[in-house]
Amino acid sequence: MYGRYTQELGVYAKEEAARLRESGQRKSISATRNLDLLEYNKGRCAKCRICTVRCQKFLISRVGEDWIFLILLGLVMALVSWAVDFCIAICLQAQKWMYGGLDSNVFLQYLAWVTYPVVLITFSAGFTQILAPQAVGSGIPEMKTILRGVVLKEYLTFKTFVAKVIGLTCALGSGMPLGKEGPFVHIASLCAALLGKFMSLFGGIYENESRNIEMLAAACAVGVGCCFAAPIGGVLFSIEVTSTFFAVRNYWRGFFAATFSAFIFRVLAVWNKDEETITALFKTRFRLDFPFDLQELPAFAVIGIASGFGGALFVYFNRLIVQFIRKQKAINRFLMKKRLLYPALVTLLISTLTFPPGFGQFMAGKLTQKEALVTLLDNRTWAKQGIAEEFDYIGNSQAWKHPHVNVFVTLVLFIVMKFWMSALAITIPVPSGAFMPVFVIGAAFGRLVGESMAAWFPDGIHMDGTIYSIVPGGYAVVGAAALSGAVTHTVSTAVIVFELTGQISHILPVMIAVILANAVAQSLQPSLYDSIIRIKKLPYLPELGWGHHEKYNIRVEDIMVRDVRYITLNCCYRDLHNVLLTGHLKTLALVETAESMILLGSIERAQLQSLLSQQLGRPRRMEYIKEQATADKKRLSVISNPCSEDSSHRASQEVRFQISTEESSFSPTRPASQKPLKPALKRVSVVERPTELPTSPHDNSGMALKNLFCASPDAEGLEVRERRIAEWEEKQLDEQVNFNNCKIDPAPFQLVERTSLHKTHTIFSLLGLDHAYVTSIGRLIGVVSLKELRKAIEGSVTVKGVKVRPPLASFRDSGTSSSETEATELHKLWDRHKSISLPQDHMPSESDEKSQ
Amino acid sequence: MYGRYTQELGVYAKEEAARLRESGQRKSISATRNLDLLEYNKGRCAKCRICTVRCQKFLISRVGEDWIFLILLGLVMALVSWAVDFCIAICLQAQKWMYGGLDSNVFLQYLAWVTYPVVLITFSAGFTQILAPQAVGSGIPEMKTILRGVVLKEYLTFKTFVAKVIGLTCALGSGMPLGKEGPFVHIASLCAALLGKFMSLFGGIYENESRNIEMLAAACAVGVGCCFAAPIGGVLFSIEVTSTFFAVRNYWRGFFAATFSAFIFRVLAVWNKDEETITALFKTRFRLDFPFDLQELPAFAVIGIASGFGGALFVYFNRLIVQFIRKQKAINRFLMKKRLLYPALVTLLISTLTFPPGFGQFMAGKLTQKEALVTLLDNRTWAKQGIAEEFDYIGNSQAWKHPHVNVFVTLVLFIVMKFWMSALAITIPVPSGAFMPVFVIGAAFGRLVGESMAAWFPDGIHMDGTIYSIVPGGYAVVGAAALSGAVTHTVSTAVIVFELTGQISHILPVMIAVILANAVAQSLQPSLYDSIIRIKKLPYLPELGWGHHEKYNIRVEDIMVRDVRYITLNCCYRDLHNVLLTGHLKTLALVETAESMILLGSIERAQLQSLLSQQLGRPRRMEYIKEQATADKKRLSVISNPCSEDSSHRASQEVRFQISTEESSFSPTRPASQKPLKPALKRVSVVERPTELPTSPHDNSGMALKNLFCASPDAEGLEVRERRIAEWEEKQLDEQVNFNNCKIDPAPFQLVERTSLHKTHTIFSLLGLDHAYVTSIGRLIGVVSLKELRKAIEGSVTVKGVKVRPPLASFRDSGTSSSETEATELHKLWDRHKSISLPQDHMPSESDEKSQ
Repeated sequence: MYGRYTQELGVYAKEEAARLRESGQRKSISATRNLDLLEYNKGRCAKCRICTVRCQKFLISRVGEDWIFLILLGLVMALVSWAVDFCIAICLQAQKWMYGGLDSNVFLQYLAWVTYPVVLITFSAGFTQILAPQAVGSGIPEMKTILRGVVLKEYLTFKTFVAKVIGLTCALGSGMPLGKEGPFVHIASLCAALLGKFMSLFGGIYENESRNIEMLAAACAVGVGCCFAAPIGGVLFSIEVTSTFFAVRNYWRGFFAATFSAFIFRVLAVWNKDEETITALFKTRFRLDFPFDLQELPAFAVIGIASGFGGALFVYFNRLIVQFIRKQKAINRFLMKKRLLYPALVTLLISTLTFPPGFGQFMAGKLTQKEALVTLLDNRTWAKQGIAEEFDYIGNSQAWKHPHVNVFVTLVLFIVMKFWMSALAITIPVPSGAFMPVFVIGAAFGRLVGESMAAWFPDGIHMDGTIYSIVPGGYAVVGAAALSGAVTHTVSTAVIVFELTGQISHILPVMIAVILANAVAQSLQPSLYDSIIRIKKLPYLPELGWGHHEKYNIRVEDIMVRDVRYITLNCCYRDLHNVLLTGHLKTLALVETAESMILLGSIERAQLQSLLSQQLGRPRRMEYIKEQATADKKRLSVISNPCSEDSSHRASQEVRFQISTEESSFSPTRPASQKPLKPALKRVSVVERPTELPTSPHDNSGMALKNLFCASPDAEGLEVRERRIAEWEEKQLDEQVNFNNCKIDPAPFQLVERTSLHKTHTIFSLLGLDHAYVTSIGRLIGVVSLKELRKAIEGSVTVKGVKVRPPLASFRDSGTSSSETEATELHKLWDRHKSISLPQDHMPSESDEKSQ
Repeated sequence: MYGRYTQELGVYAKEEAARLRESGQRKSISATRNLDLLEYNKGRCAKCRICTVRCQKFLISRVGEDWIFLILLGLVMALVSWAVDFCIAICLQAQKWMYGGLDSNVFLQYLAWVTYPVVLITFSAGFTQILAPQAVGSGIPEMKTILRGVVLKEYLTFKTFVAKVIGLTCALGSGMPLGKEGPFVHIASLCAALLGKFMSLFGGIYENESRNIEMLAAACAVGVGCCFAAPIGGVLFSIEVTSTFFAVRNYWRGFFAATFSAFIFRVLAVWNKDEETITALFKTRFRLDFPFDLQELPAFAVIGIASGFGGALFVYFNRLIVQFIRKQKAINRFLMKKRLLYPALVTLLISTLTFPPGFGQFMAGKLTQKEALVTLLDNRTWAKQGIAEEFDYIGNSQAWKHPHVNVFVTLVLFIVMKFWMSALAITIPVPSGAFMPVFVIGAAFGRLVGESMAAWFPDGIHMDGTIYSIVPGGYAVVGAAALSGAVTHTVSTAVIVFELTGQISHILPVMIAVILANAVAQSLQPSLYDSIIRIKKLPYLPELGWGHHEKYNIRVEDIMVRDVRYITLNCCYRDLHNVLLTGHLKTLALVETAESMILLGSIERAQLQSLLSQQLGRPRRMEYIKEQATADKKRLSVISNPCSEDSSHRASQEVRFQISTEESSFSPTRPASQKPLKPALKRVSVVERPTELPTSPHDNSGMALKNLFCASPDAEGLEVRERRIAEWEEKQLDEQVNFNNCKIDPAPFQLVERTSLHKTHTIFSLLGLDHAYVTSIGRLIGVVSLKELRKAIEGSVTVKGVKVRPPLASFRDSGTSSSETEATELHKLWDRHKSISLPQDHMPSESDEKSQ
């Protein structure tokens, strides 16, 4: 783990270094040559040119610096964010224009209102499906997994980038209640990964995995930062949702890139004449002198607690929808065939309900998400003053006022409808996040409470003379922060809210509400992102909860698996083979001897399999057969029949699967008596050459029948050969294993029996471990893996939803099998590429070896 | 490291668990008994009582919960903060009152102005010196060290708490340019530690070291949070200054406690009628619509860069002062004798210069720190409008306007004078921080730039019609954040500034300035806290700097020490003794055999020393002597002379120091020929019984002389005995070591040769390691300690100041020696208690053993 390095790799690294040095020298030689040439060639212009060349050299050497990378990342992301926002705005305007232009006919209006989002969402779903199915969804759960040290390589490709950006633009342009925050975290990470690859072309820095992880962490911050123009909140939010342990030195990087990005993002708005100067995205204008009364605090606390329940309900509801669709097998099967039907249907339902002349009139259906948020954060009181008063954006606020319905009813309807709509919408397989819809719902809820308070205390609560009326907009701010905090289990939504509104006057109410909401939500449900991680079955480690101090008393010895699979330094291939047969761990412990049990290191399963296949592999087998054949020829000198070479070859292959059924190789009626040796060897050969393998039982009996019916003169020879080969295999298996060319991790992570669960959890999450050996004075006595740890932590508090399948897996998998054990293509890839170490050094040769 | 546990400890833990269980059962039995009794005794009232008892039980069980702890911590700290502020305000008012009352006589005024702070500072210095010298200074460097895993136990005692609170109140009440932030971090940590001890009396939770560390991290956040009423900034600032890697699960704790604390702190102000409602501490009233122009950004950037240089200069200047005082040996010796003279002199100098009718009139000398900050953040322009206009706090702002001197000159003088005064003042050995003075200087600098801009562009920069004049207060905010960020190397000062002023409108300028200031300052100097850590020689690990990507290519094999001191499992005591003699590492590697070199674990030096002293210790020696004596008696049957028993005893002790000088034990003229075996054995005996030891060389010759002059009949017997004892010792040394009762750390941290420096640094800081062994397939091949790592990281970039002595150590040490090697009392204690693991489980037996 801490060094999956062998001599081999060392040699590789040295060669690489030498190569780099050489190329460096060559470059400098050529550079000086150029300089010389220039000096010789031209007299006057030469100096300028020399200067230019030197500057170029200097610049290229600077390209690798972190801050240049971060500035570029910030710049690119700001441009992407601005472009996406611009396109979304155009899309939404187009819908409004169509809807507005057809006001003569309600049916046509309805058609336009509904068709537009259906087409956009369907296109988005289809596009991402075809180009890169990894682009679907939020991206934060995956980034959390990646930053935990698991390599999901397909997640950071250019294809995914294109699919995510275009898919997101279309999805948000449709006006569905979807967010851009989560996808932006993913887009920024994609950007960082691609930029890193691009920069490495300049040869500036040795590309290093830990540096990449650091840059990804910074990228996550940039993603949130440029999405909301909230650099501080972005950094904090990204830390909270993606990290378990955070390196403070990355903090700086995050701030730098996020600030730059937010700055450019807002400057673009100024240059585009949208704004006069750099201000907040959803600027509020609450009074500064007396933002709220001390006696209003209970109302804010109520918002916090209610938001906590609401947030937990949202997460639960979202999971329920996924589970429901999965369970209905008939629907599932139908939807599976027509993959774009589900997005279209959901969009149709939602857009029908928000149709302004229809039900939408009771829930401010014609407002886009942004417009709704702006009106909700307004600092006037609706209930008291009425909407009719003069407003800057009178048109939008008008939407909340219905001639026959109270504004409270509108708000309640808005909250209830948007709640389930958002939970449903984020199950659509398009790139989309849930933060913004939840934020808007929270703001509406806060507004509701605020309006109620304003109606209840028309002259404010304050007693001493001056009248300070209640500001419902402040309640909206509190509600937005609290609900989004509850859903994502973060505290930094408070900071995001301040940065979004440009006012920090409500800091204490917001903090109190967010903390209460978190306390409630965390005790009820996992965060939305953790819920998705569990639904998608990404590898995860649950958090040690708030106040679970009973966990402090559990020790490793209570949870460890004592029956460890191990191999000894002096074992023979048979032992190797037996061990591979019985366990399913990805790595195996290497001990000195079975008596001493001194842990020497760990070896990956794949390494052992390749060792075994080398020993029993085709080249050596062929060699042996040839030797045997020449010996046979000399000894027997029979006339070779036309199929002997072929059949002997095939037989030799067959024999590989019959060594255990040696005595019964001619009794085709007993295929059940196969000894366990067989599948293991088969697996080895699967690894080696999957195409050559016949499906064993049938072919086996076929061969046997063939042996019985056909050539009797050869039968004896074959039998002899088979026996010989079997003997050879037995002999091979009894040889001692040569670990020389095997990659051994010489320092796997070790714990002792008395290490507490708490400390184990810390170490696992700090180092991104997958398993650790338990030793006692060098002796291996047990192993703890993520699974045991997870069990021990969740204990009785088994969170629901752990057993569900990936969300809408049916829409994503290309296969049709729906069995529980079937792993999706993605999963297999993840498993194969899954690496355990957090700050893992880059080893180019490893992936090559792994992909064998 | 990951388990310094032995069987012994396991047994201890089990017994402890059993004891806890038993007491729990007993409690529940007694509780049920009580219930029964109650039910039998009274009819009607019984139900109530049962209810009460149950509630009590429930409450007691809840006492251990984290959130109760955090609420209590927040509450206590808010009260402390408020009380300290209140006392400081009274002190400052008293000074003003005295100064104001004596306005008839300037000399008397001067006396009052000067005497008051001198008395307070001298009292503060004396009080902390006597009660707890650990309370001196900021506390943040020490907390950083503690959170890094080093145990500085004396730092978290009740005595220190009292000394710090009272010392701080007096120091700040004197009006010197000192801050309360750093000390408050320390006070909050003290509070948390004491509260933890107090809570553990209720027996709620098993007291666990990792939980304590988590609580300390939260406490640091509370400290900053309740000091500035800045919960978010507090959490972030405390993370930045104390942590290298931060557990996101603590984040939540920090926010909870800090918010509660800030809330109570501000509510106390409302109840005290200081404020109408909860608002920011230094509320600003900048306009919201157009906070700043895009074209003003270069000015903000200039503030940032200049602040970066200024911050680095401040840190350098502070260190220079400490070094200067140390170098002047004559001054040093004099000041050492009169310890309170230095504080008094510094205070006298500073208060003389700020005397308002004197030089103070040119630098707003009569304003307290708080008043100065409030005026600096004011949103009117001084230069254009003049001070004379109507103000809320006209009196204070007046201080900046001198009838004959321009306001710019006043500002420049203020900045320059305060700069060196603050750097000087924080070297006074009283509890004090540097954040607030630096913050004020930064605000003044920002104001200066702002006023210049306002004078340059009287009508603002904006072109399109509307005139938006420049707000110098905004520049002050930016300057304050930038300079304090530069000095402390943090970005979160930005957040603190927003929370302090209650406005977030200048977010982008502030962020840009803070980031630029950090970039400049970090490339020039360590942060103030790191500088103090180095000056105080606390164990530290330098950060991997911003963009030092050449570090990515260094491997462990390049920096490791290959000549590792180790002991083998089958070694004899002589080997042990030799190893102890040659190395000075705190732990030694235990390998299987010298040939295999398989690492089995590590043993602490103290453990080995006690093993050795057990083997050669007094009980066994006495036993042997007695045996010999009885044997001798039987054999020789000479008349016992009155001093024989005593002298033989004494001789036997002597022999322990002469075994190596066997041949020359009767030649007192050759004390120089002592072999190296001697000191080691001496050391062992020092550990065992320091009081019994005679100072060897003198006593040695004395004994020898005695042997020569006195009883000649005994001389032969003594010689025989000595030889025998020497033989016995030799035999003992040749015995194999029995490691059974020795605490072995069975899983010391291991790296491999190819682990990169970057990864090594990550692991060292993540786990708070002190050293790690380098292994290759189980074989020990090297060791890397913090020292090597530090060297490798600092490389050519050796930061100045690493070699300086503790600041004003002369004032703190009780000893008079000033040699470089001399460790202060504190240091020795730290070294002894220094433990390596970050999430270390609590082991009560260990400290007992260590303190032997």
